[in-house]
Amino acid sequence: MTAPSPVALCDYLVSLRTEIERELAAMLPGAPACPATIADAMRYSLFAGGKRFRPILTLAAADAVSPDAATTRALAMPAACAIEMIHTYSLIHDDLPAMDNDTMRRGKPTLHVVYGEGMAILAGDALLTEAFALLARLPADAGDGVMALRKLAAINRIAEAAGAIGMVGGQAIDLLAAGHAADASAMDAAGLRDMHARKTGALIRASAVAGAIMADGSPEQIGAVDQYATGLGLAFQIVDDVLDVVGDGGALGKTVGKDAAANKPTYPAMFGLDRSKRLAREAADAAVGALAGVHLQGGRLAEIARWVVSRTS
Amino acid sequence: MTAPSPVALCDYLVSLRTEIERELAAMLPGAPACPATIADAMRYSLFAGGKRFRPILTLAAADAVSPDAATTRALAMPAACAIEMIHTYSLIHDDLPAMDNDTMRRGKPTLHVVYGEGMAILAGDALLTEAFALLARLPADAGDGVMALRKLAAINRIAEAAGAIGMVGGQAIDLLAAGHAADASAMDAAGLRDMHARKTGALIRASAVAGAIMADGSPEQIGAVDQYATGLGLAFQIVDDVLDVVGDGGALGKTVGKDAAANKPTYPAMFGLDRSKRLAREAADAAVGALAGVHLQGGRLAEIARWVVSRTS
Repeated sequence: MTAPSPVALCDYLVSLRTEIERELAAMLPGAPACPATIADAMRYSLFAGGKRFRPILTLAAADAVSPDAATTRALAMPAACAIEMIHTYSLIHDDLPAMDNDTMRRGKPTLHVVYGEGMAILAGDALLTEAFALLARLPADAGDGVMALRKLAAINRIAEAAGAIGMVGGQAIDLLAAGHAADASAMDAAGLRDMHARKTGALIRASAVAGAIMADGSPEQIGAVDQYATGLGLAFQIVDDVLDVVGDGGALGKTVGKDAAANKPTYPAMFGLDRSKRLAREAADAAVGALAGVHLQGGRLAEIARWVVSRTS
Repeated sequence: MTAPSPVALCDYLVSLRTEIERELAAMLPGAPACPATIADAMRYSLFAGGKRFRPILTLAAADAVSPDAATTRALAMPAACAIEMIHTYSLIHDDLPAMDNDTMRRGKPTLHVVYGEGMAILAGDALLTEAFALLARLPADAGDGVMALRKLAAINRIAEAAGAIGMVGGQAIDLLAAGHAADASAMDAAGLRDMHARKTGALIRASAVAGAIMADGSPEQIGAVDQYATGLGLAFQIVDDVLDVVGDGGALGKTVGKDAAANKPTYPAMFGLDRSKRLAREAADAAVGALAGVHLQGGRLAEIARWVVSRTS
C-alpha cells in the first residue's frame, strides 16, 4: 500500500473541516426559540476560526474503523460537533478575567471583551449544555436501541473526559499552579504530565474514541484508538507549548511568550526546546504504533499524528 | 380514597430528600481521580442546604407513574441527582460577580467568596458536566437498549431545558434586563412570563418529565406531567418573588428585598402582592387539573402543588 501524499491529507482535512462547519451552523439553536444575544455570543466563539482538530479526529477515527464513509460520517458527525462545542466552551471560560484573562484568541477579541463577562459565562454554559442535547438527539425511527447504546457510551465517555476527573480537573490544577508557581519548578514532570493529560489529553482521547464507538468499532479497535489518541494528545500539547516560545504570533492569532510571562509550567520550561521537540516526536511515534494489528492503518490517523508534530500554528 | 394528611406529605418529602442526599454524596467524583480542590468546591455548593425541590419532583413523578416504588426509584434516581447538580451549577454561576453578585446563599457565603471566582466557574462547569456523565452511565448488563432509549430521551429533554432555549436563555434575558431596567415596567407581563418559563420553568418541567420517562410513562402521562409541572413551576416562581418581598430572611437564608433593590422585574412589582398570590394559587390549580384522566392522581403530585403555594421559605 502506498502512503497517501501530504497534499491528499490536506484535502482530507479541509473537506472534513468544511463539513463540520456546515453542520455546526445547522445544529446551533437560533432565534426565536433561543434569545438572540446568547445565540449571537455562541456563534461568535464557535466560528472564530478554530482548527477543528478534535472533531476532525472524531470523523477520522470513524473513517478508520469503518470503510463505509457516508454512513459512518452521518453517525459520527453529531459527536464531532458536540466535542467542538465543548472545546469552544472551555476556551471561553479559560479566557475569562478570573481564569487566564486573555483578551485575544485566534486574532479576534475574546468573547467577554465583546459581550461582557456575564454573557461569556452563559455562552460557555450554553455550548456545553447544547453539546449534550445534540448527542442525545435520536431520529424518530430510533429503532431497537442499538444506536441508543452507542450514543450513551459516547456521551458517558465525553462527559467523563470533559468533567472534574478530566478537562475541568486539569483547569483547576492549572488555576492553582498559576497562582502559586514562583518558578516553573513548582510542578514536577509527573505533575505537568497529569495536568495536560486532564486539561487537553482527556478530550482529545474522547474525540477519537467517540468516533470509533459511533462507527461500531470492536473493543480492541476502541482501545487502540484510545491509546493512539493518548500519544497524539501529548504530542499536540507539547507542540502547543513549543509554539508559544518559537511560534509566529500572527499565524497563531495569539500572544506568544504568554506562558513564560505567566510563569506557567510548560514542556520547554521544564525540558528545554530540543528535548521538548523530541518528546513530541516520540509521543507521535507511540500514537502510530498503537494502530498496528487492529485494522486501523488504512485510515488517516497515522498521517494526522505526523501532521500534529510538524504544524507551525 | 382518603387524601393523605399533611404530615404524611412531610414524611414523604423528608424521606425522598434523605435518599437524594445519600445518592448525591455517593455519585460525586472524589480524589484521587478528581483533584481535591474541585471536588471540595463541588461538594460545598451541592451540600449547602438546598430544598431538593427538583429531584423530589423527579422521584414523585416517577412514583405517580409506576406503583412499584423500589424499582422506579432506582431508575429515576440518577436523573434526580443529575438535575440537582444542574440546578446547583446554575446557582453558582448566577451568584458570580459578573452575574447577580450574591455573597450569601442559604445562609452561607457563596462559592466564589470561599474558593475564588475561577474555581467557582470551574465547579459549576464540573457539576453540569458530571450530571450528563451520570445520566449516561449504564450498568454492565445494559441489555437490549430499551433502557438506553429512555435514558437518551431524558438526557435530551434535560439538556434542552437547561440550555440556550431554556434556563441559560432565561439567565441571558435576566442579565440584559437587570442592566437596562430603570423601573420594573421595562419588561411587560409577557416578557416576565417568558423569562421565568425559561429561567426556572424549563428545568422544573424537565425534572418531572424525566421522572415520568424513566418510570416508563405513556406519552399521555408524560404530556400530563409536563403540563402539571408547567403550572407548578409558575407557582413556584411567583411564590419565590413574593417571599423576596414578605419573607423571613433568616428562614430563607438570603437577603430579602434584593430583587426590588436591583430593580429586577418580578410578579409583585408588576401585579402587586395580592394579585401575585392569587396568580400562584391559580397556577397550582391548573397543575392539579392536568393530572385528571391519566391515572396520576394516586401519587403525591397534587399535594406537592398545594405545598408549593403554602411554603414560607
